Amino acid sequence: MNNIQIIDGGVTAAKGFVAGGVYTGVKSERNDLGMIKSEVLAKAAAVFTQSKTAAAPVQVSKEHIADGFAQGILVNSGNANACIGQQGLKDAKTLADLAAKGIDCASNHILVASTGIIGIPLPMDLITKGFQQLPSLLSPSGNDDFAEAMMTTDTFTKQIAVTFKINGKKVTVGGASKGSGMIHPNMATMLGFITTDIAIDGKLLNDALKKSVDHSFNMITVDGDTSTNDTVFVLANGMAENQEVIVEGPELELFQKALTKVCVYLAKAIVRDGEGATKLVTVEIVGAGTFEHAKKAGFAVAASNLVKTAMFGEDPNWGRIMAALGYSGADIREEKIDIFIGGEAVVKKGIGINFDEKRLKEHLKNKEIILSIALNMGDATATVWTCDLSYDYVKINGEYHT
Amino acid sequence: MNNIQIIDGGVTAAKGFVAGGVYTGVKSERNDLGMIKSEVLAKAAAVFTQSKTAAAPVQVSKEHIADGFAQGILVNSGNANACIGQQGLKDAKTLADLAAKGIDCASNHILVASTGIIGIPLPMDLITKGFQQLPSLLSPSGNDDFAEAMMTTDTFTKQIAVTFKINGKKVTVGGASKGSGMIHPNMATMLGFITTDIAIDGKLLNDALKKSVDHSFNMITVDGDTSTNDTVFVLANGMAENQEVIVEGPELELFQKALTKVCVYLAKAIVRDGEGATKLVTVEIVGAGTFEHAKKAGFAVAASNLVKTAMFGEDPNWGRIMAALGYSGADIREEKIDIFIGGEAVVKKGIGINFDEKRLKEHLKNKEIILSIALNMGDATATVWTCDLSYDYVKINGEYHT
Repeated sequence: MNNIQIIDGGVTAAKGFVAGGVYTGVKSERNDLGMIKSEVLAKAAAVFTQSKTAAAPVQVSKEHIADGFAQGILVNSGNANACIGQQGLKDAKTLADLAAKGIDCASNHILVASTGIIGIPLPMDLITKGFQQLPSLLSPSGNDDFAEAMMTTDTFTKQIAVTFKINGKKVTVGGASKGSGMIHPNMATMLGFITTDIAIDGKLLNDALKKSVDHSFNMITVDGDTSTNDTVFVLANGMAENQEVIVEGPELELFQKALTKVCVYLAKAIVRDGEGATKLVTVEIVGAGTFEHAKKAGFAVAASNLVKTAMFGEDPNWGRIMAALGYSGADIREEKIDIFIGGEAVVKKGIGINFDEKRLKEHLKNKEIILSIALNMGDATATVWTCDLSYDYVKINGEYHT
Repeated sequence: MNNIQIIDGGVTAAKGFVAGGVYTGVKSERNDLGMIKSEVLAKAAAVFTQSKTAAAPVQVSKEHIADGFAQGILVNSGNANACIGQQGLKDAKTLADLAAKGIDCASNHILVASTGIIGIPLPMDLITKGFQQLPSLLSPSGNDDFAEAMMTTDTFTKQIAVTFKINGKKVTVGGASKGSGMIHPNMATMLGFITTDIAIDGKLLNDALKKSVDHSFNMITVDGDTSTNDTVFVLANGMAENQEVIVEGPELELFQKALTKVCVYLAKAIVRDGEGATKLVTVEIVGAGTFEHAKKAGFAVAASNLVKTAMFGEDPNWGRIMAALGYSGADIREEKIDIFIGGEAVVKKGIGINFDEKRLKEHLKNKEIILSIALNMGDATATVWTCDLSYDYVKINGEYHT
């Protein structure tokens, strides 16, 4: 019984997790402060932005997660708490203290995350005041309120949960995310929060998260800009009461598969909701010499403004794909490349071939477009997800005024 | 008398160069085939695209320039002769043979360049027929016809010429370019052609071109996409009769300065004419540890879709600049960064400061915007030029159909 089943819910689907969200007034009329709490202290792991201008909450959470444990997560939207020096660190710590008191745990067992405007201090009066009612609102059905509380220009909440069994015990993994890449003006940031009741060794949890993120959140691009606040957290509280996973083997593999499924779903949802996006574009690279080469090739195609505008225009412009592969830095040979759009071959051995234009145009009208590229250099593969580049992207980002 | 003076003209300004252009019918109603001829065999140097899907003319020109000499250049627009396998190489060689016969020189002393649609064989019948009258049209006043013959989506010709003196002898450097990055659909490619009558050692000429290109054509970005056909050529025919420059020293420095002036002008003209561009944006990085770090920082800012849309929207959005610096990979420290927009300080030591919003908004209305970033890490500098990202970029690239 190795199946992984998708079930309703998000960050509260796993045993022993409650969540909630409140409106503090930092931004418009939606929830803007959310919290997750585990009944018991949980193993914790994280992947953070590589940015050298990483925001204050990233720096504070790095400190707090150093011991591998956490019990609560506090996230605010509307203000990124980034690029404001020492004040930012102080405010992020104050929020962690506040949350710790609220759920009665140590401050360093609180992880914090922020998303929103860069360069303006957090409106601490609003947030601390708004926070007061939050601990009492945390509940097993609070996942929607939580998912809403971290939205910025997102147009829908992004949640998923899956279950599977380890030695007869039901294990659940759930999560929520917000996007999408650098999107609205300073409304930066991709955030992902994953909760699970699996009992697992901390190092294995950490490795599993990195692996899943490498094949999901690290494989999407909306506009190529990386944010100051990007963060993915996972909490594992062990309440599924499975025999603790402490070595590699089928149990770990199954968990890895479930975790990747959750991460890929949440990552793709971010791209689908990219600013001004009208289409989700999947770029599949097969036959690369190594995963790194496959990833380079995939990202060059997925991040190309010319490819993205062609997808918006529903044009099977393989010349732009070839050009992007050419400058990708990946190890390729032009005369070996095959390109398929929606399964229809358009390039064979580096040369354009006649294709069924009508069938291709039909595929390009879809909300989801698949570009498959066979490099024929080896066995490695990579899949990158992106969206098209539309007038609305320019509108959203060009008309915004600080 | 070390001044470098700008004079009228382009690739025929230097002694002993003639040029021209004709309409062969490969594209609409403008000239689409151009040629430059030097009266005598000239020293030649080139910088080519780094793309692994480099077009056939790039491959053929690499062979032909290997001995360091050339006497003629043939360029066609409307078709890039790229991604069509062996046929492309054959056609590029045929064109070189044709041009060689036309001006009575050896085939390997002809350099070829193409720009236009990728993946479709050159219409050789049209080109060979149209070529017939070209040799007889070459003239000292043919620079405009030549400059027009290589245009694709360019909206104006790009030409400049400068003179200076070496030991009393007048030396001239002239050039023409077309843009802009990857632009119209498959109408890829940046091309640059420079002619000079200086007498100079071949290796020094080669080094000088690389240096000038590194600070001009290699410092511009329109949409980050690199083409299959990008090429810059320089021919130096020695007809200025200066004492040949064979060692480093003030004469070489003066020539380097003149060559860079020509290259920077031609490169900036390409950006100014970028697809849908309404503004030229200059990103100046000062105080970097090394030139490479300065370049990385500059390109991250210049290539950011978010910065580019902010410039289009005339918004002083320094948060997007900080975010781009953060993920640039350059060695930076947030707390050391100062940012100026149009000379007005907006960030000091990594933190946003109050600025004269009215004055700043006035600057942002200009056709040319200057973003200056002091990293305060060292002494190295770099300047990168880009354009804004407008609705018209999406329109031009999204509505084009192959």
